[in-house]
Amino acid sequence: MTQLGLIGLGKMGSSMRDRLRAAGHEVVGYDRDADLSDTGSPAELVARLDSPRTVWVMVPHGEPTKQTVAELAELLDEGDLVIEGGNSHFDEDKVNADLLGARGIGYLDVGVSGGVWGRDYGYALMVGGQADDVRRAMPLFDALRPEGPREESVVHAGSVGAGHFAKMVHNGVEYGLMQAYAEGFELLAASEEISDVAGVLTAWSRGTVVRSWLLDLLVRAVSDDPDMGDIQGYVEDSGEGRWSVEQAVRHAVPAPVITAALYARFGSRQDDSPAMKAVAALRNQFGGHAVARSSHEVTSDASTPPSAD
Amino acid sequence: MTQLGLIGLGKMGSSMRDRLRAAGHEVVGYDRDADLSDTGSPAELVARLDSPRTVWVMVPHGEPTKQTVAELAELLDEGDLVIEGGNSHFDEDKVNADLLGARGIGYLDVGVSGGVWGRDYGYALMVGGQADDVRRAMPLFDALRPEGPREESVVHAGSVGAGHFAKMVHNGVEYGLMQAYAEGFELLAASEEISDVAGVLTAWSRGTVVRSWLLDLLVRAVSDDPDMGDIQGYVEDSGEGRWSVEQAVRHAVPAPVITAALYARFGSRQDDSPAMKAVAALRNQFGGHAVARSSHEVTSDASTPPSAD
Amino acid sequence: MTQLGLIGLGKMGSSMRDRLRAAGHEVVGYDRDADLSDTGSPAELVARLDSPRTVWVMVPHGEPTKQTVAELAELLDEGDLVIEGGNSHFDEDKVNADLLGARGIGYLDVGVSGGVWGRDYGYALMVGGQADDVRRAMPLFDALRPEGPREESVVHAGSVGAGHFAKMVHNGVEYGLMQAYAEGFELLAASEEISDVAGVLTAWSRGTVVRSWLLDLLVRAVSDDPDMGDIQGYVEDSGEGRWSVEQAVRHAVPAPVITAALYARFGSRQDDSPAMKAVAALRNQFGGHAVARSSHEVTSDASTPPSAD
Amino acid sequence: MTQLGLIGLGKMGSSMRDRLRAAGHEVVGYDRDADLSDTGSPAELVARLDSPRTVWVMVPHGEPTKQTVAELAELLDEGDLVIEGGNSHFDEDKVNADLLGARGIGYLDVGVSGGVWGRDYGYALMVGGQADDVRRAMPLFDALRPEGPREESVVHAGSVGAGHFAKMVHNGVEYGLMQAYAEGFELLAASEEISDVAGVLTAWSRGTVVRSWLLDLLVRAVSDDPDMGDIQGYVEDSGEGRWSVEQAVRHAVPAPVITAALYARFGSRQDDSPAMKAVAALRNQFGGHAVARSSHEVTSDASTPPSAD
Repeated sequence: MTQLGLIGLGKMGSSMRDRLRAAGHEVVGYDRDADLSDTGSPAELVARLDSPRTVWVMVPHGEPTKQTVAELAELLDEGDLVIEGGNSHFDEDKVNADLLGARGIGYLDVGVSGGVWGRDYGYALMVGGQADDVRRAMPLFDALRPEGPREESVVHAGSVGAGHFAKMVHNGVEYGLMQAYAEGFELLAASEEISDVAGVLTAWSRGTVVRSWLLDLLVRAVSDDPDMGDIQGYVEDSGEGRWSVEQAVRHAVPAPVITAALYARFGSRQDDSPAMKAVAALRNQFGGHAVARSSHEVTSDASTPPSAD
Repeated sequence: MTQLGLIGLGKMGSSMRDRLRAAGHEVVGYDRDADLSDTGSPAELVARLDSPRTVWVMVPHGEPTKQTVAELAELLDEGDLVIEGGNSHFDEDKVNADLLGARGIGYLDVGVSGGVWGRDYGYALMVGGQADDVRRAMPLFDALRPEGPREESVVHAGSVGAGHFAKMVHNGVEYGLMQAYAEGFELLAASEEISDVAGVLTAWSRGTVVRSWLLDLLVRAVSDDPDMGDIQGYVEDSGEGRWSVEQAVRHAVPAPVITAALYARFGSRQDDSPAMKAVAALRNQFGGHAVARSSHEVTSDASTPPSAD
Repeated sequence: MTQLGLIGLGKMGSSMRDRLRAAGHEVVGYDRDADLSDTGSPAELVARLDSPRTVWVMVPHGEPTKQTVAELAELLDEGDLVIEGGNSHFDEDKVNADLLGARGIGYLDVGVSGGVWGRDYGYALMVGGQADDVRRAMPLFDALRPEGPREESVVHAGSVGAGHFAKMVHNGVEYGLMQAYAEGFELLAASEEISDVAGVLTAWSRGTVVRSWLLDLLVRAVSDDPDMGDIQGYVEDSGEGRWSVEQAVRHAVPAPVITAALYARFGSRQDDSPAMKAVAALRNQFGGHAVARSSHEVTSDASTPPSAD
Repeated sequence: MTQLGLIGLGKMGSSMRDRLRAAGHEVVGYDRDADLSDTGSPAELVARLDSPRTVWVMVPHGEPTKQTVAELAELLDEGDLVIEGGNSHFDEDKVNADLLGARGIGYLDVGVSGGVWGRDYGYALMVGGQADDVRRAMPLFDALRPEGPREESVVHAGSVGAGHFAKMVHNGVEYGLMQAYAEGFELLAASEEISDVAGVLTAWSRGTVVRSWLLDLLVRAVSDDPDMGDIQGYVEDSGEGRWSVEQAVRHAVPAPVITAALYARFGSRQDDSPAMKAVAALRNQFGGHAVARSSHEVTSDASTPPSAD
C-alpha cells in the first residue's frame, strides 16, 4: 500500500481521502480547517511521511496552489513528488514543475473529473509529467479511478501541463454538451406540440444517440421540478471554459459551440445587456426622435407599416 | 409627371407621398384613417386615376397586404400596375403576382430602405418584376431615391420577389452590423482602460474603416445619453431577420453573424432563460443534492476547490 | 402477440422487423425491393392482416412517405392504424392524420432513435397521437425498445406531430453534442501539450462528466484511426438539424450551439466560401490596388507595419 | 510647425510622413531600408531633433516595437516624448510607458485607422496617455486627421493603453461588419431570386441603413469581379481580432458576432477541418462499420430511410 500526504480537504479532497483509504492506502491529510485536518501544519504532514514522499495538492487554483507549492518546495527533499490535482492553468504547471525540479522534486499535474459522485463511482484522471513519476503514482490513480480497464479513466496525456490541458478541454466540451441539452430543453418547452417535456427527456435515456450521464442528471433535475420554476437561469463559469476559448483563439481553432456556451453563461448573469441597449438605441434612432427612450417600439395599425428597416 | 395611387399613409407612406409630390407627381392617397386619406375608399382612389393606373401599396405585410392586393385585383383593369412596397416575404410576392397577372395586371415588389430619414434624404429601392414594368415605374423611383447616380440607390434585382429578397438580406446584414457595433460598445464600456466611450465612438466617425451611417446614429445616441441609462436592452425583431436565417438554412449558407445578432435579440427579451435554467440545474446536480436550488454556487475557501467540473 | 404490417425494409425497417419477430410478433413486410419483401404489394400486405390492422411506415420522409400514406388511405378500413416511423416533419404528420382520420383510420407519428445499433440494443421511441392509439401500439413499442423501465425509452410526447417534433429536437441536440466533442478533439490535436489525443478521449469514458454513448463512438473512431487521416471533414445534414433551427427561429428561442453545429456542417461542404471571398476582397481593398487578387496578403518586414486595419 | 522623428517608413509610415510634411511639419524619418530612410540610424535621427524631442514609432508590433522603444530609452532625454503608433497590444504599452517613464520620457499610444487611404483622406487617431503629452502632440494629430471637427477623428480615450485598446475594439467591430456584409453577399449569390448581386450591393450605397465605407469598398470589389472568381476565400487575421475576443472573455462580455467573424477566418484557412473529421467519423459510426471511411454517406432509395439519426 502507498502512503500519501493530501493538502486540501474540501469537498473533493475529503472524498478522495475516503476513496484512497477505502482502497487501503495511508493518507495523511492537512486542511486549514482543523476539524477536517489530520495534522496541524504542512510541515507536520511532511514529517509524518516516509521518504520518498508523495504529496497531493487539492486546493483552489491560482494563489492558494502557488503558495502551497512554494511551501512544499521548502519542506520536501530531493526525490519527493508533488501531484497538483486542482484546476490549475497548464501554464502554471510549468512554473510549479520548474520551481520543484530545481530542488530535485518531481511534479505531476492531474486533471480530476467526477464531481461529488467520484467518491463512490471513482474519478477520471488526466496526467501530465514524466513517465517514471506517473508509474510511481499509479497505485494512487488505480485507487481513485472507477472500475474497468485503466485506459478508460486514466491517461498519461503528455509532459507537464498536459493533464490540466486535457481537463481544460474536457470542461470546454462539457460546456458545449450542457448548452446543447439546454437548448433542446428550451425548444421542447417552447413548442405547443410537446405536452410532456420531462417525459421526452426521460425517454432519451436509453437507446438514443444523445444518451449520456449529463442527460441522466438533467432527467433527475426535471423529475424533481419539471418546469424548473425553482431554478434561476443564472450560471457561473469556472475558468476552464474561458481558458478553452483562449486556447482555441491561440491555436486558430474555430470553436463556435464551446464559445457560444460560454457566452450564454456570460449573458445569463447580465441584468441588462449594454450591447442590446446599443441596438435598441440604434433602432430608436431609425424610429424618429419623438419615440420614448425606455421603449423604442412604434405601435402600428393595419395601415401603418413599420418605419424602421 | 406621373400619376400614382398610394394605399397606406402611415409613417412611411405619408413621407413617400410628400417626397413624390415635392417632385411634381400627382399622388392620390388612401388610408383607413380618414384624417390622413385623400379618398374615401380604395374604389374611389382607383376611380380618380387615369388608365393605365399605377397603385403603390404601403401597408403592413401579411394579412393587410394580402387583402389590399385582393381588393385591387377586383378594382383594377388589364394594363394597370401594382407596386408592393411593404415588407412582404418574397414568397407572398409570387402569390400576389399570379393573382394579379391572371387579370392582366402587372406587379412589382419593391424593398424600401431609409426609415424616417428617407423623406428628406431619399429612399433606396430594390425592385423585383418585369423589365417593362420597372421602366414604367422609374419616374416614381427617381423621385423617391436620393440624389446621385441612379444605380447607387435603385436596382432591378431580378424577377418577382427579388426586391423583397434583396431587402430581406439588407435587413439581415443590418442586424449583423448593429450587433457588431453594440458588442464594441459593450467591450469599451467594460474595460477599465477607456475613460471616454462616447468620445471613442465619435472619433470613429471619419477616417476609420468602421465609419458608416449606423455609426453616426450610434454617436447621436451616446451623445444624448453616454451610458444609455435611459434605454432598456430589449430589442424586437421585425421578421426579415428571421427570414434571412431561414433562407441561410434553406440555401446551406453559414450565416453565424446574422444569426447571432438575431439570437441576441431573442435573448434580450427573456426575463429568465429556460436554457440557462437547465444549465444551472445540471451544475446543481454536480454540486450535490444539499445545494439550494435558487443558487447553485458552492462557497469555497482557500482549502476548498470547486467540487463541480 | 401482435400482428403488424411494415412498409419499408431498408436498413432501419429490416432491423426493426428482426427485433419485432424476435419478440414473437408477426410481421408482414413490404419493400419495393422484392428480395427484401414478404409481399408483392402494399395491397397484398393489407390483405394478409386481420382487422383491425396496424401498418408501420418506414420509408424516407417527404414524397415517399406522402405517397405511402395516400395509398394506405385507400387500402385500409375504419379502425385500422397507421404508424409513421420515418423522419417526417411534424407539419406533415398533421396532414397525414387528417387524411387518414377522414376515413376513420388512426395515426401515430413515432420518432425512432438508435441507428444501426438498435436491432440488438433496442430503439428509443417518441410518440405523438391519441392515447388509445398509443395504448394499442404499446406491445410493439415494448418489443422495439431497450430493456429497462419503459419510460426511459418510450414517451407519449403529445398529440399528432409531437413524436417527430421530439425526434427533431433530439437530432438538433445531437448536432450540438457532436460538434462539442469535435471541437474538443481539434483543440487537443492542435496543442503541443497533448501527446496522446486518442488516449485522452478514451480516458474520458468512465467517471467524467462528459461520458456518453457518442463519446464511446468517438473513442472507437480514434482507436481505429487516431488522427482521422482516412476521414474527410465533410458532413451532410439530414433535415432535422435545419428544422430545429427553423423552430428555434419561429419560437424566438436562442439556439446558438445547435445552429453553430449546423453551420459547421454547411461550411464543411464548401470548397471555397463566397463569404470569405468577400472578406478577402474587402481586405484587398484596404491593402491597395496593386495587391494580387489571388492572395491579399502584403508581405511585411520589420520596418513595415501592416497597412490594413 | 512641429518637428518630428518617425521610425518605420513602410506603407503606413511613409504615407504619414507625406501627410505631415504636406501640412508643413518637419519630419526626420528612419527606416532599415536605406532607400526610404532620411537618416542612417536612430541615433542620427535623435541627434537631428531639437529638444524636447518627439519620436513617432511606426514598426510592427511585438519584438520590433519592443526593440525600438528600448533603443529610444537609451537615446532620448528627460522631457522627450515617444508616440507608439503601431498595432501594439495595450499591455505592452504599459511596459513601454514604465520603461520610458523611469527616465522621464513621456509615452503616448496611438491607434491609427485609415489604411492606405489615409494619406489623402486622413487618419483617425485613438490616443492613450497623459493629457499634457496629448496636448503637446495635438498639432501632429491635427495634420494627420481628416478635415472636419477634431472630435470626429481624434480622441483622448484614457491613460496609457487606452489608444490601442480602442483601436483593438475598432478592429473587432470591423471584423464583425465585414462578416455581416460577406454573409449577405453569399446569401444573395446563393438565391435563385437575385439576378444582379453586384447591382443590389451597389444600390445599397445611398439611402439605406447599411451604407458605409466598407460597403463602398465591397461595391468596388464586385464591380471589378462580380462573382469574385479571382479571389480565394482565404483570410488572415491580424492579432487585434484575437485580442478583442480575449478581452471579451476576460470581461465576461458576450461577443458572438466578433467571435464568429474571427472563427470564420480561422475556418477559411483550413484545408480540412479536424473537428468536421470527428463529426464525420461519429456519423460513420452510426452508419455501421461497412461504410467507406472517405465518405460516410449511405446511398438511399425510396424504401430505405437513413439509418443514422
